[in-house]
This record gives sequence, structure tokens and C-alpha cells, in this order.
Amino acid sequence: MKKNSLTLLAGIMFLLAVVSAKAQSSLPPSIKKGTIKVTILYPNGEGKKFDMEYYTQKHFPMLRSLFGSALKATAIDKGLTAGSPGTPLPFLAIGYLYFDSAAAFQDGMKTYATKIRADVPNYTNITPIIQISEVVE
Amino acid sequence: MKKNSLTLLAGIMFLLAVVSAKAQSSLPPSIKKGTIKVTILYPNGEGKKFDMEYYTQKHFPMLRSLFGSALKATAIDKGLTAGSPGTPLPFLAIGYLYFDSAAAFQDGMKTYATKIRADVPNYTNITPIIQISEVVE
Repeated sequence: MKKNSLTLLAGIMFLLAVVSAKAQSSLPPSIKKGTIKVTILYPNGEGKKFDMEYYTQKHFPMLRSLFGSALKATAIDKGLTAGSPGTPLPFLAIGYLYFDSAAAFQDGMKTYATKIRADVPNYTNITPIIQISEVVE
Repeated sequence: MKKNSLTLLAGIMFLLAVVSAKAQSSLPPSIKKGTIKVTILYPNGEGKKFDMEYYTQKHFPMLRSLFGSALKATAIDKGLTAGSPGTPLPFLAIGYLYFDSAAAFQDGMKTYATKIRADVPNYTNITPIIQISEVVE
């Protein structure tokens, strides 16, 4: 019984060490080097509008629901200022979608692009820049 | 002794639950809503060059060393393709620096900007777009 407890304890501590080691990474826990990151940038400009509440409360939940388990993680940034004083803010918002492969995103878009694009005018009048990147670190 | 073991076990399992709960978030573990994210984008274009090995092996380690504990996390993306077929790749690379406040970044830049800028020609001929964002989710 005592031996069993020690084995259990050792197992739990090993698991804890693994989980903690993961937590040291600056990447989201579900994101590994090589993960595909779809970045959606909304350039700033005169007359440009972006409804962050709709984007976070309606658009992203819709994306999660459409892509399902293929979508590994998401993130949203709200633009504050340019890095250099006196320069206009480059992007009003940036959204991120993480997938295991570019195909996982592209296959989903074949099916859902029309539905996704139809929702865009509900939160912005900006044509976004979309980039597919690989997470390097 | 048996009671002590059980208490220890309960403590470890609680800790494991806390760490695991954190791991469910799609944000890096050290990043909370409201964290400041400095995004450095390197636009693609004819004749543009970017040395990813230097960026990951030399430039980012230098940034971590200069900003020290003010820099909460970092991430690097390598641009693969545009989101729409037939469109040129928007950015060759995107770097991310996470801080607790915009002042933490700006104060560091007051001291280190000259040194950081002097290193840029070692890995690229691109003038980056720099944006300060707030992590919304």
C-alpha cells in the first residue's frame, strides 16, 4: 500500500513537472512550434470603424463554432498606438486563429467563407489583410 | 504519517488542478487580458530580405537581455502565404513582445532604442511597422 502511494505520488509529480514545463513557454499551451497562425489585420484609416464588442461576442464565437476542433486557439488584440510617437495607429484590431495545418484553415474556408464574409459588415467597414504564418517560437 | 501523505497528495492535486486550469486558456500562460503586446511587422516587397535565424538566435535574445523582467513573453511568426490565393504574402515575419504596460516598453526604448535599431540591418533591409496593442482575449 505504501509502495503504491509512492508510485502514485511519483506519477503525479512527473505529470506536474510536464505541465509546469509547458507553462514556461511563452506560446499558448495548445500551440507548438510549427503551428499555423492565421493573422487577420484591420488597417486603420480615415472613416474606418471596428466594433470590438461584436467581434469578441459574436464573430469569434461564430468562427469557433464553424471550425470546431480544427481551430486550436484564438486571440484578439485591440490597437492602441503606433510604436513611434506621431505615427498613426497601423491597425484598429488584429485577430489570430491557430490551426494544425494550413489545409485545416483552407478546407474550412471552402465551406464557410461565404458565411464568414457575410458577417464582416456587422462589425467593420475595413477590408482585412489576411496572412498565413508558421509559429517559429 | 498516512495522514501527512494524504495532505501532501491533496496539496499536489490542488496545484495540478490550478496549473491545468491555466493551460486551458488560449493565451500564453504569463499573458492576461489587458497585457500590452508590441507587434513588429516586416512588410514583404521586392528585394526585401529577412534572416529568421539571426532574428531568433541573436536579435530576440538581445531584446530579452535588454528588457529583462519587464518583458513578460515573446513570440515570432514566419510568413508563409496570403490568406487569399494569388495575393502576395503581406509580411515576411511578425515579432511580438508582451509587457505589463505600454510605459514598460516605452521606458525601455528610451534607453535601448539606439542599440536595438543598430542591430536591425544585421537581419533585414525592411523598415518594420510597430504597433502597441492591448490583449483583449
